[in-house]
Amino acid sequence: MFESRFQSFEETTDPSQGAARLAALRAELARRGLDGFVAPRADEHQNEYAPANAERLAWLTGFTGSAGVVIALGDAAALFVDGRYTLQAPQQVDGRAFTVVPLAEASPEKWLEKHLRKGARFGYDSSLHTPAQVGRLEKAVAAAGGELVACDDNPIDVIWPDRPGAPCAPVRLYPTRYAGEAADRKIARVAAALGADALLVSDPHAMAWAFNIRGGDVAHTPLPLGYALIEKNGAARLYLDAAKLDAETAQALGKLATLRAPGDLVADLRAMGQGGRSVRFDSATASMRLVLALRAAGGKDELGEDPIAAMKARKNAAELKGARAAHVRDGVAMVRFLAWFAAAAAKGRLTEIEAAQALETFRRDTGKLADISFPTISAAGANAASPHYRVTEQSNARIARGIYLVDSGAQYLDGTTDITRTLAVGTPSAEMRDRFTRVLKGHIAIARALFPKGTSGAQIDALARLPLWEAGLDFDHGVGHGVGAYLSVHEGPQRISKLGHVALEPGMILSNEPGYYKAGAYGIRIENLIVVAPRKIAGGDRDMLGFDTLTLAPIDRALIAPKLLTREETAWLDDYHARVRRELSPLVDPATRKWLAAATRKLAKK
Amino acid sequence: MFESRFQSFEETTDPSQGAARLAALRAELARRGLDGFVAPRADEHQNEYAPANAERLAWLTGFTGSAGVVIALGDAAALFVDGRYTLQAPQQVDGRAFTVVPLAEASPEKWLEKHLRKGARFGYDSSLHTPAQVGRLEKAVAAAGGELVACDDNPIDVIWPDRPGAPCAPVRLYPTRYAGEAADRKIARVAAALGADALLVSDPHAMAWAFNIRGGDVAHTPLPLGYALIEKNGAARLYLDAAKLDAETAQALGKLATLRAPGDLVADLRAMGQGGRSVRFDSATASMRLVLALRAAGGKDELGEDPIAAMKARKNAAELKGARAAHVRDGVAMVRFLAWFAAAAAKGRLTEIEAAQALETFRRDTGKLADISFPTISAAGANAASPHYRVTEQSNARIARGIYLVDSGAQYLDGTTDITRTLAVGTPSAEMRDRFTRVLKGHIAIARALFPKGTSGAQIDALARLPLWEAGLDFDHGVGHGVGAYLSVHEGPQRISKLGHVALEPGMILSNEPGYYKAGAYGIRIENLIVVAPRKIAGGDRDMLGFDTLTLAPIDRALIAPKLLTREETAWLDDYHARVRRELSPLVDPATRKWLAAATRKLAKK
Repeated sequence: MFESRFQSFEETTDPSQGAARLAALRAELARRGLDGFVAPRADEHQNEYAPANAERLAWLTGFTGSAGVVIALGDAAALFVDGRYTLQAPQQVDGRAFTVVPLAEASPEKWLEKHLRKGARFGYDSSLHTPAQVGRLEKAVAAAGGELVACDDNPIDVIWPDRPGAPCAPVRLYPTRYAGEAADRKIARVAAALGADALLVSDPHAMAWAFNIRGGDVAHTPLPLGYALIEKNGAARLYLDAAKLDAETAQALGKLATLRAPGDLVADLRAMGQGGRSVRFDSATASMRLVLALRAAGGKDELGEDPIAAMKARKNAAELKGARAAHVRDGVAMVRFLAWFAAAAAKGRLTEIEAAQALETFRRDTGKLADISFPTISAAGANAASPHYRVTEQSNARIARGIYLVDSGAQYLDGTTDITRTLAVGTPSAEMRDRFTRVLKGHIAIARALFPKGTSGAQIDALARLPLWEAGLDFDHGVGHGVGAYLSVHEGPQRISKLGHVALEPGMILSNEPGYYKAGAYGIRIENLIVVAPRKIAGGDRDMLGFDTLTLAPIDRALIAPKLLTREETAWLDDYHARVRRELSPLVDPATRKWLAAATRKLAKK
Repeated sequence: MFESRFQSFEETTDPSQGAARLAALRAELARRGLDGFVAPRADEHQNEYAPANAERLAWLTGFTGSAGVVIALGDAAALFVDGRYTLQAPQQVDGRAFTVVPLAEASPEKWLEKHLRKGARFGYDSSLHTPAQVGRLEKAVAAAGGELVACDDNPIDVIWPDRPGAPCAPVRLYPTRYAGEAADRKIARVAAALGADALLVSDPHAMAWAFNIRGGDVAHTPLPLGYALIEKNGAARLYLDAAKLDAETAQALGKLATLRAPGDLVADLRAMGQGGRSVRFDSATASMRLVLALRAAGGKDELGEDPIAAMKARKNAAELKGARAAHVRDGVAMVRFLAWFAAAAAKGRLTEIEAAQALETFRRDTGKLADISFPTISAAGANAASPHYRVTEQSNARIARGIYLVDSGAQYLDGTTDITRTLAVGTPSAEMRDRFTRVLKGHIAIARALFPKGTSGAQIDALARLPLWEAGLDFDHGVGHGVGAYLSVHEGPQRISKLGHVALEPGMILSNEPGYYKAGAYGIRIENLIVVAPRKIAGGDRDMLGFDTLTLAPIDRALIAPKLLTREETAWLDDYHARVRRELSPLVDPATRKWLAAATRKLAKK
């Protein structure tokens, strides 16, 4: 039967421990002469998926969201969460111990300014905050008349008896046939791009890309945790736990870099500082601790973008070939799922968890599933109105008449996928079809967009919203995020959002996922991955770009109001469906093929 | 006959003096122990239109563009200009004295880093640079190993024998029936918005708005030059040359504020600093000299936005009523001009200057023209391919068959206008009609746009470009700038541009002016002023906004390819033309009325 191996549906924490753990933390702080402490939901690389030993916020408070900060003072403790978690957080934490504060109401810094008493010593773990974050804390603590104290070890670790050890999954070489460029050439390119004497690579995704390695230290992303240091002359050092490397891997990496223990990094930065050298740090991921190590020793820190981010974002021919193959494979799993769902859901007894288990099983059936790329969002009815809904045994809803939303993805060795489909169960209402068709129009506007070189994602984000705006509607997330090549399903700097100010460049992979959410009722999202590609326009005088769609799966015709589509939009959909059928039909069983033929037939003429 | 009183078509400078004046500057610098000096095209308020005594860059180099910076070192001098002026600047300056450097190639700071010798003392006039600009200079000079020296008096003034005096036009009270809100209420609102102890109002537009005064110290904008200081408790000081105030005005302003001489400002800021007080400075316009006066005396400077900018941007009901009246009046002048032009241009002997003179004359005929709002861009053929073309006796071209572009505006006591029309002379080519129609489609997309509250100009800028992008075309300026109420025709913070990150709010007036420029051939731009207004959408769930169009003048039907317009676009144009006819017909002579009826008739069915 169906089964989920990469996703758990259990509630992993409960509120009952919060008060006792907070008391233990306060005692530990008192022992250290501290009057307060801040614990962000972060590891030392600012990873989206943190390893278990970095889940201090969840252990302390019970809150399991993907972003949050807790501040503990002697007489008050507050948990700060963003709009996604304002409903979830109060259910997960003990309200007598922790006040939940929506970030829209107050930032941790504003709150600190108000609640920290004059003369207080306020601590933070210097491995878990970037210099910019520390700067903001410093300002707030100073405004309150307190003193900010950097801690090299985290007080929570001392009171967490069964804290897991650091993850130690094997590191594997990522074959050049997938990576498309040998690691020594990448490292040379990075070195050539440096202004400073060296680059500290603190983002493990960047390290994995530059050295053509993958690992398994966090969930859903094949990341090896570690650091690298690349010098302007091309010399490199890799800071990886030796236990992660077998002899062959160690030998191969030894040709690219000096292999060092993670614990050597601070000493190495100090030595560079003593030599008066300059180091570029990635302002988004480098911790204050590392910057201070260089700075205190007399070195010059240069905070800015890691140049690898932009290189990694532009996928090369081999990576794009891999992505296309991964999407054909994933399309087969999706089509099998959709065909199964159409029959199973009609019976009216399917649950969200069963659907997620089925989808993962179809993906595993490909024989190539390394992981899912994030926990599947399997959402029926009103649950789908939360864009980041995560199903648990407690929330697990029956998929009733109406619409069902499934947002999921896979990690294959040759590529990372991310797809959302919204599916009719029974006959959808006219309003649902109207909303779905508007979201589809927005999706098609992005898929068909033509724009000049130099255009940023911020400039085209509104294209996906216009059909909703016309009806007085909108949605509150960006249209698309960048996607890695067998790396993170959320990758920067490329994005389609009002905050996406980086120019879109050929080879960048992004999601195209407009939506519409009606609180308490239903949610709609249509997501394909797309890749930026050059376009030639006869008679034009600018270098133009557009998107090729990678994702292959039918879009539910039952939810479309054909009259709302223009001729060009209908043509795009019919062409897309014809391509899905052409590419996937030969790869599925006869029953699925029959379902696919019906699901991809042309839209009826208006 | 026609005549221009507010615009000169003479070349006001010539290159021949540059070398001698540069030598004199170098001698003056040597006398002061300086090795170099930077002179921006700026006055002490960072005004777009600077008074004559601040035109140091033009006097020194001969360059008359509206933006530029010159750096003089002992052995090199460079003039930095943006893309608008890379052709003009080399014609206006002596290339043996000054190297013209396009900003796209190097910033003044990058150039300084390279050319300043170690140990050099490099001067700047602390009245002409904002702290942010000084910060960039400081970094560059430090990187070159030099020392940055603030000058309280400008060395150019010493060697400029016939430098004009400071302007001293009378200050007039701006009637509340136009301003819509009494000055004491505005000042109280500003005071209530302050975090710091006081606000230094360094932008004369902001001062004019807050105190309901207008003046005449610069061209084309009814600005009184001066400063104001508004304290948190509502107390205010006005720093205006007493010679600008008649007894009645002085008495009225004396009820709002203590009247001080401009020369008292630095001493007053020092006194506030000695009292340990905090002052908000407008980071866009406050000079380093003022910030230093406070800072050196121990005060706390808070650099940021002047809160007046956002208040001034949202026009109240009286200002909007005035704007509508001004646009009807301006529409009458425009329609008389367009009718005259249609006949006069057909004869083939009209010049760009004659057209500009005629247009100004029709505007003066309204009896209410206070000034033109900027020098009219009257551009035939290839001249129109430069979006900022300014006609002179030397460049003055005959308006031949093809297309002609006229971008102009007026200052009336009740409002400021800005309009561009592109006109066919003879039969335009199919390409011209295609391009014009795409620009028109973009213009209509903005005019018809619906967007939720909170949307910024950056988010909708692309709407005006999509029809051009589809053909591989684009234009290299923003879609729209903010416009003042009998104030500057270029006003922030509102704008429709990829850099316009401020939310659009009801009452904001902006231009809607997409274009297309074919170098060496022709230029197209269609510009109306628009105002942000609420929109109710039945069935929607968001607060929505849209634009009302203020400008009233026909759009040349001869340049439209009707087949390229959708039904909705054609309907918008027909409705707009019907409104122009309805509002203006009763106000023009019979011959013009007849022309107007033809110019505004419905587009032929496809």
